[in-house]
Amino acid sequence: MNYPAGFRGSGISAGIKANGKKDLAILANDGPQYFGTAVFTTNRIEAAPVTWSRQVVKDLEVRAIILNSGGANACTGPAGFADTHLTAEHLATQLGVSCSDVVVCSTGLIGLRLPMELMIPGIDAAVLQLSDTNSIELAEAIMTTDSHPKHYSKVVNGVSILGIAKGAGMLAPSLATMLSVIAIDGLVEPAEAKVIFEKVVSQTFNRIDSDGCTSTNDTLTFMASGAARIKIGGKDLEVLLFDALSYLAYQLIADAEGHSKIVEIKTVNAVSEIDAVEIGRACARNNLLKCALHGGDANWGRVLAALGTTSATFNPYVVDVSLNGVMVCRGSAPGEDRSLVDMSGKIITILIDIKAGSESASIWTNDLTADYVHENSEYSS
Amino acid sequence: MNYPAGFRGSGISAGIKANGKKDLAILANDGPQYFGTAVFTTNRIEAAPVTWSRQVVKDLEVRAIILNSGGANACTGPAGFADTHLTAEHLATQLGVSCSDVVVCSTGLIGLRLPMELMIPGIDAAVLQLSDTNSIELAEAIMTTDSHPKHYSKVVNGVSILGIAKGAGMLAPSLATMLSVIAIDGLVEPAEAKVIFEKVVSQTFNRIDSDGCTSTNDTLTFMASGAARIKIGGKDLEVLLFDALSYLAYQLIADAEGHSKIVEIKTVNAVSEIDAVEIGRACARNNLLKCALHGGDANWGRVLAALGTTSATFNPYVVDVSLNGVMVCRGSAPGEDRSLVDMSGKIITILIDIKAGSESASIWTNDLTADYVHENSEYSS
Repeated sequence: MNYPAGFRGSGISAGIKANGKKDLAILANDGPQYFGTAVFTTNRIEAAPVTWSRQVVKDLEVRAIILNSGGANACTGPAGFADTHLTAEHLATQLGVSCSDVVVCSTGLIGLRLPMELMIPGIDAAVLQLSDTNSIELAEAIMTTDSHPKHYSKVVNGVSILGIAKGAGMLAPSLATMLSVIAIDGLVEPAEAKVIFEKVVSQTFNRIDSDGCTSTNDTLTFMASGAARIKIGGKDLEVLLFDALSYLAYQLIADAEGHSKIVEIKTVNAVSEIDAVEIGRACARNNLLKCALHGGDANWGRVLAALGTTSATFNPYVVDVSLNGVMVCRGSAPGEDRSLVDMSGKIITILIDIKAGSESASIWTNDLTADYVHENSEYSS
Repeated sequence: MNYPAGFRGSGISAGIKANGKKDLAILANDGPQYFGTAVFTTNRIEAAPVTWSRQVVKDLEVRAIILNSGGANACTGPAGFADTHLTAEHLATQLGVSCSDVVVCSTGLIGLRLPMELMIPGIDAAVLQLSDTNSIELAEAIMTTDSHPKHYSKVVNGVSILGIAKGAGMLAPSLATMLSVIAIDGLVEPAEAKVIFEKVVSQTFNRIDSDGCTSTNDTLTFMASGAARIKIGGKDLEVLLFDALSYLAYQLIADAEGHSKIVEIKTVNAVSEIDAVEIGRACARNNLLKCALHGGDANWGRVLAALGTTSATFNPYVVDVSLNGVMVCRGSAPGEDRSLVDMSGKIITILIDIKAGSESASIWTNDLTADYVHENSEYSS
């Protein structure tokens, strides 16, 4: 799969991962436009590359992004920040750009320094391999516990878009929640593109919540090269980004650590979208509900118990809940027989009608399984 | 074990539980004082008995309490509320008191009506068996998935105190979280006793958080009969209640569904106790951290990742974290070697020093296990 025009990329094994798999990726923007923006984790304990990259994107100009798996470079103190700085500087020198235009992203274990003696030669090797083909390598190099690379590629009205992402665990955005890069070869108006990107993120990546845990490293970057010489903005850009981001966000939930179900929690007739999102998140983070869904138990009582912990505006006595289309709870009391609900499929839809307004929102999550426990109790050993 | 003077109780099987175990309990206060107060769940979806009992305790007078397991009578609509009303009225008639002085508590599955055809004869039978001995029956009759009854009994300076509780799952107070009754035969000043009781609850039951889920039925009732003719108040009452409530709260965590570890999260040097509690809760609700603790993995990075999601006042770069006495994180960066931490014991202590002030608080929780998932994915089937 080719990169969008104006971009070159590569994904290699620098030896950071003990198993020898790909662990270092570079995406360089050769212009003529060098637009870049990003959204980051809201976790106040943020990794060194997040602190670094926040500054880089402030002027909406990004020349390159470097991503590594095999180590998050989080909670590594001033030495860890120096490692990020050196990483950006070394790549910038190789590319002949300013290091203040280089975004850095890391993922892996918290609290470990990056092996810079491997990173530096890795950067050199990755720069040598930069090419305009085989963009899947980029997605492969950022995988951690992902079972497969997440990759999106499309051409719309002459504008190419590429999207890659990694997720799998610690999926509870209070923003991006994972690493992801979106690159297009359209020509954008920077200030407008930033606003549209953030809006689309809030409706896609910010609507998935696998395990309620917010990572220290989440970074979602959007770059545009302008090489296609086609202006794109407004609704066209919004749709282009929405299709890519919603696809990638869904891929993350569909490949979340140790899940057995994909769950959509759709709240309708809320006073505000904020209320609808809060309700969806409360359900997505309720372990008892998530266990019930795993067990194929149409336990609507746990939906209401989760709903009741929110500050959303609603009357507690009039709520309807449908599970996979069967209204098992009507007026906050038993409705149809719960045995009518078929929970055997991979996807479960919970529809919560709180009858308070006219806004709605969906949150996507997973069930809670013994496999999740196994996978996450053995992660660092 | 005798009841405190002035109280009679009984715990019987009314047939509500399919397995024939005890499921109905009554505690009657014969005075001369009829003090009663209670704290309830903060879940806005509250069970009918909670709605009922909130009104009962408003005048700080309670003549009797009736508790059932085998059904929560939550999300049962107006018919469920009528069931609670009838329960209180029937017991009140049998005892010759006003139904507006009868607290009702229910626990079990949400969304099921109580079998009133069993409840009514059950009440009659339980009233016939009221006695001043064998208070353990009271604790036995409110068990759900508890592995053993939780019971506390002590005499201090001539004042007897009895405490019972049930918990096991859905343990995340935003107040009481479970059913519990405390009875003393001391003579109290009602308004003062209410304030002291609520303070002690905030420092005991409100400091346990097993699975982050807040129940629809939590009720913690405190009654005093005055039959010992000994006045008790101030610090004496506070200590008496604190010893009982902290014992029972710990019993709930030690018997939480499917856990393998008891975890104390102690936050020190916070600006406020509220900040310290928020940090403890954020850790107690972080599934990734709880999985790591289960696996004996001294993963302090997940402690920091949880900390970073709070709104507490702290500098993200100066935090120390000790696990079982080993300072594995110093200044938000790696400290002692994590392999020095012995995680093999039943109890794990996490000490978080945020160096922002001088307040501290502990939250008690459990690890997240495959057994928790199994137990809670098969609960209603």
